[in-house]
Amino acid sequence: MKIVTLAGGVGAAKFLSGLVRVVPPEDLTVIVNTGDDFYWMGLYVCPDLDTLTYTLAGLANPQTGWGVRGDTFQALDRLKILGCDTWFRIGDIDLATHIYRTEQLHGGTSLTKITRHICQHNGILCRVLPMTDSSVPTLVHTDDGTLLFQDYFVRRHCEPSVIDFAFHGIEKAEPAAGVLEALESAQGIIICPSNPFISIGPILAVPGVREALRETPAKIVAITPIIAGESVKGPTAAIMENLGLKVSATSVATLYRDFLDVFVLDHRDRRLETEIAALGLKAHAARTLMDCEAARIELAKSVMELFP
Amino acid sequence: MKIVTLAGGVGAAKFLSGLVRVVPPEDLTVIVNTGDDFYWMGLYVCPDLDTLTYTLAGLANPQTGWGVRGDTFQALDRLKILGCDTWFRIGDIDLATHIYRTEQLHGGTSLTKITRHICQHNGILCRVLPMTDSSVPTLVHTDDGTLLFQDYFVRRHCEPSVIDFAFHGIEKAEPAAGVLEALESAQGIIICPSNPFISIGPILAVPGVREALRETPAKIVAITPIIAGESVKGPTAAIMENLGLKVSATSVATLYRDFLDVFVLDHRDRRLETEIAALGLKAHAARTLMDCEAARIELAKSVMELFP
Repeated sequence: MKIVTLAGGVGAAKFLSGLVRVVPPEDLTVIVNTGDDFYWMGLYVCPDLDTLTYTLAGLANPQTGWGVRGDTFQALDRLKILGCDTWFRIGDIDLATHIYRTEQLHGGTSLTKITRHICQHNGILCRVLPMTDSSVPTLVHTDDGTLLFQDYFVRRHCEPSVIDFAFHGIEKAEPAAGVLEALESAQGIIICPSNPFISIGPILAVPGVREALRETPAKIVAITPIIAGESVKGPTAAIMENLGLKVSATSVATLYRDFLDVFVLDHRDRRLETEIAALGLKAHAARTLMDCEAARIELAKSVMELFP
Repeated sequence: MKIVTLAGGVGAAKFLSGLVRVVPPEDLTVIVNTGDDFYWMGLYVCPDLDTLTYTLAGLANPQTGWGVRGDTFQALDRLKILGCDTWFRIGDIDLATHIYRTEQLHGGTSLTKITRHICQHNGILCRVLPMTDSSVPTLVHTDDGTLLFQDYFVRRHCEPSVIDFAFHGIEKAEPAAGVLEALESAQGIIICPSNPFISIGPILAVPGVREALRETPAKIVAITPIIAGESVKGPTAAIMENLGLKVSATSVATLYRDFLDVFVLDHRDRRLETEIAALGLKAHAARTLMDCEAARIELAKSVMELFP
């Protein structure tokens, strides 16, 4: 059964590390947000792609959620001595990915091909696709001006209040090779438990993606990134508050209602099932907090049971 | 007394680390070969500049002569896993220099300014100037075709026989800001014990440099890189053999005879004094093997005594 997932960073990576234990990885395609990609000291960094590949390769740092387990920061410490900004923490092992990718990009290789190469050299068997090969940086319009995403997220710790998001140039971006084909031939589609605005939002904004989701005959299932009115990780809840939305799984389901079939709620949020039903969606309750490997696998199994 | 030196990598770095103990560093300008600079994985590496600055900053690895003491190779090991060539060994701390420099170069900052910044952030008080801000890669014409310098030197271990050298684009290169001024106002000039073909040769080939040396009233002293018919380090002797030259300090002196005043021989080569004199140069014998810090300081003192 061909499964396609839409994925952001840490939450998606956790879910997918469970999913590859339940679904044959060669049947799985992961379409990844690239809106928060950016140049760091001249090197092209793709935070979500890297979090996913490191996690699927078994290299991820479980404490931080980003970066490589056991990584060192010799280069970064030295850059600090040279007077460079070091608020974005890139380790020495991690650095190799960015050096490789940047050199390949400058040589004209697409991000899609580079990502495939990285996966192949890390023993990753599922197909990982960037949502697009174009650069479509997420701009965060805040009460303190417009910020690049990492500037908002890492340097400013999500403190400025969000007014709106924009994905610069997205109207001219094309889906990466394989993205639309994967969606069209999918037998099941899963929206990972990622931030709906800045992780899933950019993917849905790539021309053709949302339309493909609306038109596919495949069942589409989304997993909540909000549990009991709080985001498991990251700024999802804070952004919802900034935008004047109720911090609730239902608010996430509402954002996907035009294409979604099933919304997976946390079992603690069962009381929201009627709200979800009122959106015309099927609700499914499960343990969505992936605090250990067993929980990841359990959630993946529970989601996969939704497909015929 | 204003002293200007022409410098390559390891041999020059050893001598200069002694010289800064003898001469007030603020009176010292070092003009450095950039012919072996090259792009490595998209990062601009300047081997001689870095060997010098690491040595003067007290960071150099005394075992290898290149790189940083105690450096790790986490990024390089990871690049190997990603399928990249790793015959050029760049450590994690070293990497920071190249990342910083490349980003600055791409932003339009000159190599001269970047080098000044690196020196300032490493407590280096003498003035270190690249010979030029232009890229003038050393091409090695060999019996096995034309090779880029690092390809010949590191990857091929100097095995192909050298026919000739060329410094690509040097006829259009300009000396870096300060180079000609330093030479014109120098009260003493020292050619470091570096390879005359691939370290000092490129500096002399920068338009205006050799002419400035011929015309300066300052005394010019060169230190031999050849002791008792052997090069202390690196391929100087092998190159001399390839080119059909006698492997002798006298052959080096001959290459500089049009501008040189004094040639510093190793004390073991005193018998060559008459050959040096026959070139119209003054010979001076000294212990030139810098196998410890005391020897570096002694040699620097011995050379400085040659200036009035």
